[in-house]
Amino acid sequence: MKNLIIASTSTLHGGDYLEYILPELELHFQNCKSILFIPFARPGGISHDDYTEKVKSVFAKINLDVKGLHEFENPVEAINKAEGIFTGGGNTFLLVSQLYKFNVMTVLADAVKNGIPYLGTSAGSNITGLSMQTTNDMPIIYPPSFQTLGLIPFNLNPHYLDPDTNSTHMGETRETRIKEFHQFNSIPVLGLREGSWLDVKGDKIVLKGTLTARLFKQNQIPEELESGSDLSFLGTLQV
Amino acid sequence: MKNLIIASTSTLHGGDYLEYILPELELHFQNCKSILFIPFARPGGISHDDYTEKVKSVFAKINLDVKGLHEFENPVEAINKAEGIFTGGGNTFLLVSQLYKFNVMTVLADAVKNGIPYLGTSAGSNITGLSMQTTNDMPIIYPPSFQTLGLIPFNLNPHYLDPDTNSTHMGETRETRIKEFHQFNSIPVLGLREGSWLDVKGDKIVLKGTLTARLFKQNQIPEELESGSDLSFLGTLQV
Repeated sequence: MKNLIIASTSTLHGGDYLEYILPELELHFQNCKSILFIPFARPGGISHDDYTEKVKSVFAKINLDVKGLHEFENPVEAINKAEGIFTGGGNTFLLVSQLYKFNVMTVLADAVKNGIPYLGTSAGSNITGLSMQTTNDMPIIYPPSFQTLGLIPFNLNPHYLDPDTNSTHMGETRETRIKEFHQFNSIPVLGLREGSWLDVKGDKIVLKGTLTARLFKQNQIPEELESGSDLSFLGTLQV
Repeated sequence: MKNLIIASTSTLHGGDYLEYILPELELHFQNCKSILFIPFARPGGISHDDYTEKVKSVFAKINLDVKGLHEFENPVEAINKAEGIFTGGGNTFLLVSQLYKFNVMTVLADAVKNGIPYLGTSAGSNITGLSMQTTNDMPIIYPPSFQTLGLIPFNLNPHYLDPDTNSTHMGETRETRIKEFHQFNSIPVLGLREGSWLDVKGDKIVLKGTLTARLFKQNQIPEELESGSDLSFLGTLQV
């Protein structure tokens, strides 16, 4: 049975890395002694080793050991043998490029479908959707495809930002960008605000945290979903 | 001799479409009766016809006729016969996909190198760089390549935004995103603020408008360039 936590962000303003969600993670990974960390998204260009060390120091607080996927000679085997998996945030184009380069995109999807507990934050959450086409990231590298894990039947926009009504900036709002996406794609998009996460157990997908999330469907007015909403109905909307 | 105006934005806050730069455009296109408009970036999903109409009504003020590239049966011929060309803003992934689809990427580059006056705003400016990899746009469509026109020897980040020191949002700042780009690419990136533009005459590239622009070079501290700066020196830095 699928078992995922899909978080908008790793860190809340003023908080430490993963601090706000650590009690949830302790429960989520309760049957694991060790977690496999996928550091490929490299936020701010941090090295795989430094990123893994950062994660290790936080998971130590809940008595979990962490190994980076880059430490293994055989990444396919590492994923298949993992007790739990965490994919961290950073640049989604880079993350997706690396997953394809090491031929682990399908392997990772299958492992999670088979029940290995998964945690994603930001870019690591983005890839649980049908495609990475609603990322906010810069295309710093050309991936062989925009298709991702497809563990949920819609797309995500992590770090969702409401339009700033005081802004004089003329760049597109997040809502405008998602509207442009829906000119060419029928996939629903969930704008997940910082502090929100999805809890996936089998086919059940529940919005967690204190905030509402914004759901965009093609040719429809966006709607706000309350925390606790079950999003599994989106699986029946797909064409 | 190359002759381009490359603008960060079409519109300033509180102003009308192209209003702030219209006196420059009158001069820029002084030898033209008609302009070829490339509407492919479709901001907000607007149709090619509606976008072209919008441009037409503004250029009428400086006595220029406008035809949309989508109105021609043979886009290659349309570009080669154009007196002047304007590529409007919108989504850069969409714009680049369409330019490749109609086989006009190289044709457009050659036309501008041969001296046809060119205007770009936002996405239409982004494509004048070496690649579209420093766009802010959402990857709503998968282009066959990120390579663009290469009319200037560096990349652009239009609508450049300084970090908001009051923000509690944890998504990456523009500067962090460009730093991530420079982990993998040595191409310099110019952050062009709204209201700034580049005036290109042959190999001379001059920053115009009242604002400074922010220049990012790999492994170097970013620098602010004053209006009036000549950026052609960046052509000698390329590897």
